[in-house]
Amino acid sequence: MSDDLFAAVVAHTAVRQQTDDAAIVAAVLRVEAALATVQERVGDLDPDAAAAVHEACGSAADVDLAELARDTALGGNPVIPLVAELKRLAGPHEDAVHRGATSQDVLDTALMLMSRDSIGTITADLDRAVSSLGDLPVGDQQVVGRTLMQSAVPLPLSVKVDGWRRGLADAAHRLRSVAAGLPVQLGGPVGDGSTLGERHEDVRAGLAHELGLADAPSWHTMRLPIADLASALATASGVVGKVALDVVLMAQSEVGEVREVAEGRGTSSSMPHKSNPIAAISARASARRTPHLAAHLFAQMEQEHERAAGAWHAEWSVLVDLLRATGSASWWMAESLGSLEIDPAAVERHR
Amino acid sequence: MSDDLFAAVVAHTAVRQQTDDAAIVAAVLRVEAALATVQERVGDLDPDAAAAVHEACGSAADVDLAELARDTALGGNPVIPLVAELKRLAGPHEDAVHRGATSQDVLDTALMLMSRDSIGTITADLDRAVSSLGDLPVGDQQVVGRTLMQSAVPLPLSVKVDGWRRGLADAAHRLRSVAAGLPVQLGGPVGDGSTLGERHEDVRAGLAHELGLADAPSWHTMRLPIADLASALATASGVVGKVALDVVLMAQSEVGEVREVAEGRGTSSSMPHKSNPIAAISARASARRTPHLAAHLFAQMEQEHERAAGAWHAEWSVLVDLLRATGSASWWMAESLGSLEIDPAAVERHR
Amino acid sequence: MSDDLFAAVVAHTAVRQQTDDAAIVAAVLRVEAALATVQERVGDLDPDAAAAVHEACGSAADVDLAELARDTALGGNPVIPLVAELKRLAGPHEDAVHRGATSQDVLDTALMLMSRDSIGTITADLDRAVSSLGDLPVGDQQVVGRTLMQSAVPLPLSVKVDGWRRGLADAAHRLRSVAAGLPVQLGGPVGDGSTLGERHEDVRAGLAHELGLADAPSWHTMRLPIADLASALATASGVVGKVALDVVLMAQSEVGEVREVAEGRGTSSSMPHKSNPIAAISARASARRTPHLAAHLFAQMEQEHERAAGAWHAEWSVLVDLLRATGSASWWMAESLGSLEIDPAAVERHR
Amino acid sequence: MSDDLFAAVVAHTAVRQQTDDAAIVAAVLRVEAALATVQERVGDLDPDAAAAVHEACGSAADVDLAELARDTALGGNPVIPLVAELKRLAGPHEDAVHRGATSQDVLDTALMLMSRDSIGTITADLDRAVSSLGDLPVGDQQVVGRTLMQSAVPLPLSVKVDGWRRGLADAAHRLRSVAAGLPVQLGGPVGDGSTLGERHEDVRAGLAHELGLADAPSWHTMRLPIADLASALATASGVVGKVALDVVLMAQSEVGEVREVAEGRGTSSSMPHKSNPIAAISARASARRTPHLAAHLFAQMEQEHERAAGAWHAEWSVLVDLLRATGSASWWMAESLGSLEIDPAAVERHR
Repeated sequence: MSDDLFAAVVAHTAVRQQTDDAAIVAAVLRVEAALATVQERVGDLDPDAAAAVHEACGSAADVDLAELARDTALGGNPVIPLVAELKRLAGPHEDAVHRGATSQDVLDTALMLMSRDSIGTITADLDRAVSSLGDLPVGDQQVVGRTLMQSAVPLPLSVKVDGWRRGLADAAHRLRSVAAGLPVQLGGPVGDGSTLGERHEDVRAGLAHELGLADAPSWHTMRLPIADLASALATASGVVGKVALDVVLMAQSEVGEVREVAEGRGTSSSMPHKSNPIAAISARASARRTPHLAAHLFAQMEQEHERAAGAWHAEWSVLVDLLRATGSASWWMAESLGSLEIDPAAVERHR
Repeated sequence: MSDDLFAAVVAHTAVRQQTDDAAIVAAVLRVEAALATVQERVGDLDPDAAAAVHEACGSAADVDLAELARDTALGGNPVIPLVAELKRLAGPHEDAVHRGATSQDVLDTALMLMSRDSIGTITADLDRAVSSLGDLPVGDQQVVGRTLMQSAVPLPLSVKVDGWRRGLADAAHRLRSVAAGLPVQLGGPVGDGSTLGERHEDVRAGLAHELGLADAPSWHTMRLPIADLASALATASGVVGKVALDVVLMAQSEVGEVREVAEGRGTSSSMPHKSNPIAAISARASARRTPHLAAHLFAQMEQEHERAAGAWHAEWSVLVDLLRATGSASWWMAESLGSLEIDPAAVERHR
Repeated sequence: MSDDLFAAVVAHTAVRQQTDDAAIVAAVLRVEAALATVQERVGDLDPDAAAAVHEACGSAADVDLAELARDTALGGNPVIPLVAELKRLAGPHEDAVHRGATSQDVLDTALMLMSRDSIGTITADLDRAVSSLGDLPVGDQQVVGRTLMQSAVPLPLSVKVDGWRRGLADAAHRLRSVAAGLPVQLGGPVGDGSTLGERHEDVRAGLAHELGLADAPSWHTMRLPIADLASALATASGVVGKVALDVVLMAQSEVGEVREVAEGRGTSSSMPHKSNPIAAISARASARRTPHLAAHLFAQMEQEHERAAGAWHAEWSVLVDLLRATGSASWWMAESLGSLEIDPAAVERHR
Repeated sequence: MSDDLFAAVVAHTAVRQQTDDAAIVAAVLRVEAALATVQERVGDLDPDAAAAVHEACGSAADVDLAELARDTALGGNPVIPLVAELKRLAGPHEDAVHRGATSQDVLDTALMLMSRDSIGTITADLDRAVSSLGDLPVGDQQVVGRTLMQSAVPLPLSVKVDGWRRGLADAAHRLRSVAAGLPVQLGGPVGDGSTLGERHEDVRAGLAHELGLADAPSWHTMRLPIADLASALATASGVVGKVALDVVLMAQSEVGEVREVAEGRGTSSSMPHKSNPIAAISARASARRTPHLAAHLFAQMEQEHERAAGAWHAEWSVLVDLLRATGSASWWMAESLGSLEIDPAAVERHR
C-alpha cells in the first residue's frame, strides 16, 4: 500500500525517504554495527564476533519489510525482530549481537540519526528560500504596511522582505543547533549501563563518536532531545507559515503584488484562467500540521519509570510526521520564493 | 517506499487499507461515476455520455499512482489529474466527465465515503471489545477502588468492568451517529450549484442517495462534517485510552490483577521472563495520537471564502491519520480485552 | 488580583461571571442542597437534618474565597474545604452534609450546571449573530467567489451569507443538544453508589431531576460528557472563526466590501484614520484558543481507576477557558455582524 | 470577580502575580518611561518633555483597571487606552508620550519583561526541586527497574534519582537561556522604525539596555521569541510531568516506595485514612496544561503582514497561562520532592 497522494502536497520532501521503513532499518543496522565496532575497540568483543555482527548487519539490509512489520506488532517495536534476525544471521556469534543493549537504545539512537539527516534536508531548503529572497528585485520600492489587514503607512519593501529572510535564517539556525546536539542513547534495559560492562561510559562515548552524535547520559524516559526537536521543527514551520501567508495575501486577485510563475503548477480543474500560488498554499498547509504534532511530543514526555507503556511508542511516527511536515513546508517555501514575481505597479498602486 | 514498521504499532487496523492511495482513487472514481449516473437520470447527460464516463472510471482504476502523485503536487489535489485522465479516457465524451463539479466536491465526498467505511471497521472492533468484556468471569468479586492511585474502598469488579463496557459502547454509538449523517458535497467551483444546472439540488440529492450519504447544502468551507468526525473519533480514542490505562495499571508487576495471554505477543528482547501487556500498551499509544489530530482539524475550520488556501489541504492526511489511530486503538483494545486473564487471588489480596 | 485586561479581548462574555469563583461556590452549594432535598424525599435524611444542610448552604454562600482558595491547594479540590465549612455550619447535623457523596460527585455536577448555563449565554449570542445576518441587505447582488484567495466566478451574495447563517445555526444546535444531555454525577468515593444507600439510583435520578440535568450512571473516570462539551464548543468556535475570517478578508483595504460601523470601536493609537474590524478580529482571536483547549480535554480522558491522579484536576480551568473563549467568540461575532455594513459598489466592482 | 479556586491547584505560583493586570500595567508603564528616557538621551525629547512622561507614568500606576479593561475591548489592546491616559496626564507634553511607537511595540516588550521575571520564579522553584533531590537518602540502595510497567532488573536508586535531577536542571538551563535572549520590540506602526527618527536603531538598542533585554530587529509578526518561550516552558513542564508521574506511581498503595509527608496536605473528604501525594498530583495536573498552550502559540505564528488580525491578540493570555502552568508545575514539584520520604523496606521488597 502507498500513501503518496496526500503526501504529494503536505509531505513533499526528501525527508520522506529519509524516514521510511528502509531508512529505519538502515539506521538500526548502522547503530548495531557501530556498537559492535566500539565494543571490539574497548575489548568487550573479540574481532571474530564483531566481524560476524558486521556481516549480519550487512545481510539484514534486505530483510523482508512486510514480515518485519508483522513481527513488530507482536513485540511492540521493530528492533526486537530485527535483532532476532541478526542473531540468526550471526549464528554461533549470536551473543555478540546487540550486546548489553536494549531495543529502546537502538531505536532512539536510530531516530536521532534519521532526525539529523532530515534536518540536513530541511535546512538546505530553508537556505534556498533565504537565497531566493536575496535575488528578489525589491530596489528602493515602498510597499504599504498593513496592520490588522488595513492599509497603514508605507515601509521599504526591502524591510518587509528582510523580515522574512531573517526569520527563515533564524529558523535554520535553530534547527542546526538542535541537530548538532542530538545525543546517542545507550543504557541497557533499565538505563544504568550495567549490562554494557564496567566501561559502559566509554562504550557510549565511542558509539556517539562513531555515529557523529553527542554523548550524553541515558535519556530513555527523560525526553529532552525529542522536546528540542519538536521545538525547533515547529518553530521553523511557524516561520514558513508566516511568510507563506504573506505571499498568499499579496497574491490575492484584489492585491496582485506578487505571483508564482512556474510551468504547469497551480492550474484549476474548472477554471483554466486562474493561476494559484500553489507552492505558498502547500507550504502553509504543510506548516499547519506542526503545532499539534509538537504538542503531541511534549505531551508524551510524561513517561513511566525506565520505559514508558505507550508514550514512547506514540512518539515515533509523530516525530517522523513532524520532520516530513517541516521538510515539506521548507521545500514548498523554497519553490514559492524561487518562482516569485513582484508586480511593481501593483505595489506602487496600494501604497 | 513503505511506512509499515511504526504503523504496525500505532496504525494497526484495516482502516489503513481503507484510506490508502488505492482507496482514495477508488472513492474518487466512485463519486465521478455516481455523478454521471445521476446526471443521466435527471436528463443532464445522455446515455452514451454517461456510459463513456462509467467506462472511463472503470479504466482509470489502475491509474499509475506514482504519476498521479507527481501531478497532484502540481495542481494541489489528486482530483485534478484524475479528472484529466478521465477526460482523456472518455475521448469525445470528455465534456461529460466531472460535469459542473469542482475538485473539492469530489474529494470531500470521497473522504466522506472513506470515513464511513473506516468507521464501520472501527465500530466492529469496539463491538468486539464490548463483547469480550461480557465474557470476563467477574462473578461477584470485589476489587479495591483506587482514587488518586491510592487504595480507597472496594467496589464490585462487575461495576468497574461495566464502566469500561458502557464507555466503549457509547463511543461506538457516537461514531455510528456521525457516520450516518456524513453528507455529500456538491456545489461546483464556488459552492452555489449553478454550474450543475437548474436541477442542481436534485442532482445533489441523487448523488447523496446513490452513495448512501446524507444530502446537505454545500459545506465546502463550513467544515462541520469534519468537526463531527474529529469529535467522535477523538472521543472514542479517549475512551479506549482510559480502559487501556486501567489494564496497564492492573497488570503492573506489583498489582498483577490482570494479564494479557497471547501466543508470541509481548516478549522482550533483553528480558525473556517478562510478559508485557503489549496490546493495551499499543492501544494507549494509538489513542494518544488523537487529541492533537482532532485539534488540528478544529483549527483548520478557519477557511477562506469559497475554498481555503491551505487549511483544506491540511485536513486530508490528518483526517486519515485520525481514522487510522482510532482504528488502531480499537483493534488493540479488542485484542487486549479478548486475551485478558483476571487473577482472582491478586484481586482479593488488594481489596 | 484581576485578569480583566486580556480577557477584555479573548474572554469578553457573560460566561466569565458564570464560571468564576462565586459561580463555582454557588453551584457546589446548589448541588449539596439538592442532594439533601432528595435524600430527605427518599427517607435517607430526616427533615431537621435536611433543613440544617439547606441552612448551612445558605450561610456558606458568602464564604471567604481567599481562605477557600488556600485550603483548596491543601486538599486538591475546592469541595473538600467547602464541605468542611458546611459541616461546621450544620453543627449537630454535620453527618447530614454531603451524605454518601465524594468531592468529585459534587464538583463534576457543579461543572455541568455551570456549563449548561454558559451554553445558554453562548447560544443566545449565536442566535443574535444569525439574526443579524438575516437583516443584511444582500438583495440579489452577486459577489465574486474566491477560491485559494483568487477570484473565480460570481455567486449570489445571499448564498454566501446563507452559508454563514447555516453554520452558526448548526453550531448553536449542536451546543443545545449537548447541554440538554449533560448528566448528573453521583457515585460516592469509588463510583458504585454503595455509600449512598440501597436507593442510590433513586437518589441520583432525583438529584438529576432537581437540578434539571440528565440522569446517567457514574462517569467519574469515563469522561464522555467532558468530551461532548469539548466537541461542541470547539466546533462552534470553528464556525465563528470561519465567518470572522471572511469578514476580515472582505474588510481589507484593497477589498472594502464590508466594514464594521460602531462608535468608538476599532480605532488605532498611532493611525487615527484607520477603522479596524475589531469585533471580527476579536472573534477570530477568541475562537483560535479553542482547538487546543479541546485537545487538552480529550487528552485528559485517560484517567486512572476510580479517580485520576492529575487528569481530573487538569480539566477544570481548561473547561472554563473553553466555555469563555467560545462565549467571547460568539459575543464578538454577534457584535461584528450586528455592525456590518456592505458596500454594494465594492462588491459589484470585484465580481 | 476572582479565579482563585481552580488556580489554587493548577496555577499555584507567584507567576500569577507577575502576570496579572497590575503587572501588565506596571510593565507597560515601565516601557513607556524607559522609551522617554532613551529618547531624551539621544536628543529626540527635551528634558521637560521626558520628565512629563515619567511623571505621567508614575501617576498612571493606579489607573482604574475596570475602566481600562472596558476601553481595551474598544480598541483591541490595553496599550491604546493606557497611552490615552498618559497623554491626558502629560497635558502640554502629550506629544512626548509613546513617541514614534505603536501599541504592539509596548505590549510585546512588556510581555518580554513579564516573561523574564516569571522565568526567574520558575527556575528558582526548579532549583529548589533539584536541591531536594540531592538531599534524598538514596545511599547505595537498588530499586527495581520497571519497563512497560513490568519489573525488569534492578538499578541503583541513585541513578534513577539522578535522572530526575538532571532533567530538572536541564529544563531550568533551557529556560534561563531563553530568558537571557528575550528581545525588546520597537519598530513603530509598520515595524521599519521610521517613525522613531533617524536614530531609531540607537533608540531601540538603548531601550533594550535600559530594560535589560536583548536588542533585536523588529519581530512584530515574526514571532520567534514567543516560539522560544513556548518551547522552553513546555519542555520544562514535560520534565516535571515525568518526575511527578514516577512519584505518583511509586506512591501507589501497592508499591509504597515513597510518600509525601506534609502537614494538612493530601487528606480526603470521604476517606480520612488516605494520604494522597497531592503535590505530585498537582504538579502533573499543572504540567499537563502546557503542550496544548505551546501548540496554540506555535499556531499563532502565522501572522498577517505588519500586524496580525487576531493571531497576535490570541497570544497574550495563552502565554500568561503557559507561564503560570509551568510555574505551578515547578512549585508543586519542589513541594513534592521537598516532602518526599522513601520507604527503604518497600524499595528492597520489590527489587
